[in-house]
Amino acid sequence: MKHNFGAGPCILPKEVFEQASQAVIDFNGTGLSILEISHRSKEFEEVVVETEQLVRELLNVPSGYSILFLQGGASQQFAMVPMNLLPADGKAAYLDTGVWATKAAKEAKRVGQVEIVASSSDQNYNYIPKLYTIPTDAAYFHYTSNNTIYGTEVFDRPATQVPVVVDMSSDILSRNINIADYDLIYAGAQKNMGPAGVTLVIIKDELFGKSGRTNPMIFDYEAHAKAGSMYNTPPVFSIYVSMLNLRWLKAKGGIDVIEQENIIKARTLYDEIDRNPFFRGTAAVEDRSRMNVTFVMENAELEAEFLALAKERNLIGIKGHRSVGGFRASIYNALTISSINALVDTMREFEERKK
Amino acid sequence: MKHNFGAGPCILPKEVFEQASQAVIDFNGTGLSILEISHRSKEFEEVVVETEQLVRELLNVPSGYSILFLQGGASQQFAMVPMNLLPADGKAAYLDTGVWATKAAKEAKRVGQVEIVASSSDQNYNYIPKLYTIPTDAAYFHYTSNNTIYGTEVFDRPATQVPVVVDMSSDILSRNINIADYDLIYAGAQKNMGPAGVTLVIIKDELFGKSGRTNPMIFDYEAHAKAGSMYNTPPVFSIYVSMLNLRWLKAKGGIDVIEQENIIKARTLYDEIDRNPFFRGTAAVEDRSRMNVTFVMENAELEAEFLALAKERNLIGIKGHRSVGGFRASIYNALTISSINALVDTMREFEERKK
Repeated sequence: MKHNFGAGPCILPKEVFEQASQAVIDFNGTGLSILEISHRSKEFEEVVVETEQLVRELLNVPSGYSILFLQGGASQQFAMVPMNLLPADGKAAYLDTGVWATKAAKEAKRVGQVEIVASSSDQNYNYIPKLYTIPTDAAYFHYTSNNTIYGTEVFDRPATQVPVVVDMSSDILSRNINIADYDLIYAGAQKNMGPAGVTLVIIKDELFGKSGRTNPMIFDYEAHAKAGSMYNTPPVFSIYVSMLNLRWLKAKGGIDVIEQENIIKARTLYDEIDRNPFFRGTAAVEDRSRMNVTFVMENAELEAEFLALAKERNLIGIKGHRSVGGFRASIYNALTISSINALVDTMREFEERKK
Repeated sequence: MKHNFGAGPCILPKEVFEQASQAVIDFNGTGLSILEISHRSKEFEEVVVETEQLVRELLNVPSGYSILFLQGGASQQFAMVPMNLLPADGKAAYLDTGVWATKAAKEAKRVGQVEIVASSSDQNYNYIPKLYTIPTDAAYFHYTSNNTIYGTEVFDRPATQVPVVVDMSSDILSRNINIADYDLIYAGAQKNMGPAGVTLVIIKDELFGKSGRTNPMIFDYEAHAKAGSMYNTPPVFSIYVSMLNLRWLKAKGGIDVIEQENIIKARTLYDEIDRNPFFRGTAAVEDRSRMNVTFVMENAELEAEFLALAKERNLIGIKGHRSVGGFRASIYNALTISSINALVDTMREFEERKK
């Protein structure tokens, strides 16, 4: 059995793969593949309704918020957010916590005025800036809650009176959040929700039409909300598999249960990194991500050897991003504690060999 | 066995469904699902390269054209085309052949100036306008080559010196076209190419940056071309299944072979519609589509009865669009001649019962 620590598109539960595989041949006993049914069929409309309902229930989304399933990933949201929320004469505030946050701000700058309120680029983004001021006249404040490359995570919503927009692509559905604290949350599906090809947007309806811009309708949140995510042909299969995965999460006990598992998984791995004299974590301890654990070796010359051993032990996808080096273990919802144990065992095995 | 005449997302060959189903469990013997592999993995990069190569080969795409796999369907192209090709002080020319052409023009109007050169709305779009003038100062001329709702198709490229942009969502890969005659072709995959969730764009590189607008990078064709369709996380599964389907088409003998089959399939069905006194085609004979065959009954009161018989005979998805009524048989590449025969037999059976 392989332990997939890849950063994404990522691991989903085995039973979800099995159900998805079956539906490609015969969807719900219709005699048709999920790939050939009409998106306007009753059967598929039920899929969209159930997927939305599962998101609403699992994240306890209050009324007054719309749940959308769009295309184009978080990268398209980098553009849609300012197009929909940033007036031509307004400005938006961005927190810079790494590559993805930088890209979001850069794209917004092509739409309007952007102020970077703080950045941790001075230390290769290995921490989350804490002391900064968000201008009270900003149209919104944007940040990235989990930074996959650097292994940092923002757990608490920064205090501000302006609307808060968060890219939660890599930690959505991994822990409890109070949706009412946020105005717009978006997430590419391909970490904890489903396969690549669908993007989740949770938006406070009050934000519709806030920019005063004439955008193409396809980029208008309100148009998608009014159409129940069927403004145009949706990514049928990616939504369907997301539904299967959300069902799995619900059956498991929901966010409370998965959050406890995620805490234990992350702690087990960080404890070993802190204990094992051969390894060292790269992120500031108080900002350590529960989703992406980044670490290096005290002696960088041993990294190739550890990587080879990891491969032998069927641990895949643990090579770190080139901008940080070393290793990155992505430990999303579907990664089991037994995979964590396999990694920890391999780190201990390496220690035994070398000491 | 069901005969799926649905308008789309639509039928693909059975062997494609089987291969796709297998890859959801184990992709190419990697021990991983196609849904959990990294889009930056060597294995998936090979998929993108092969998919592009198959499109290039099957459609004989000359050098100087880029092939892109994007998200958002044709509806997103309705916006991206003017954003990329229509200067702020320019105008674009559109041919109005029905709902989808109208939507394309309406979206372009939100971006810039649009001139409708002709429309067949006077006869509920049951024909393709022939006599019209395309202004020589237009930034481009846009039309929809196949109109799924009305069953009409434009086979010949209209004569003009301005760049020609075509929505070929529902007839791409069904017949030979000379790519060099066109400047930009786009197509939502979910008819003849693959599952919903990926959009094919074939663009002449000379068009890059033609509008002079500062667009978000995610909507810039050149950015996607430079990144080899990996500007951001692509819709992995939809691209993979498209590759399987293109392999099937190549193994079958390519576009020449499928075009001959499509001609025979369409002729067989239209011949029966013309012969059978109970039925009547709705589209002008010279503009009849080879992909969507629209027809009504001479006595509209019998339509419910025929629909019930069709259902008994496992013919599904033949109810016509509400704006035309009657019936619509979508007969895309993967629909076999035996399904056509099943429909013709049912029409004859109905005639026998009633005469």
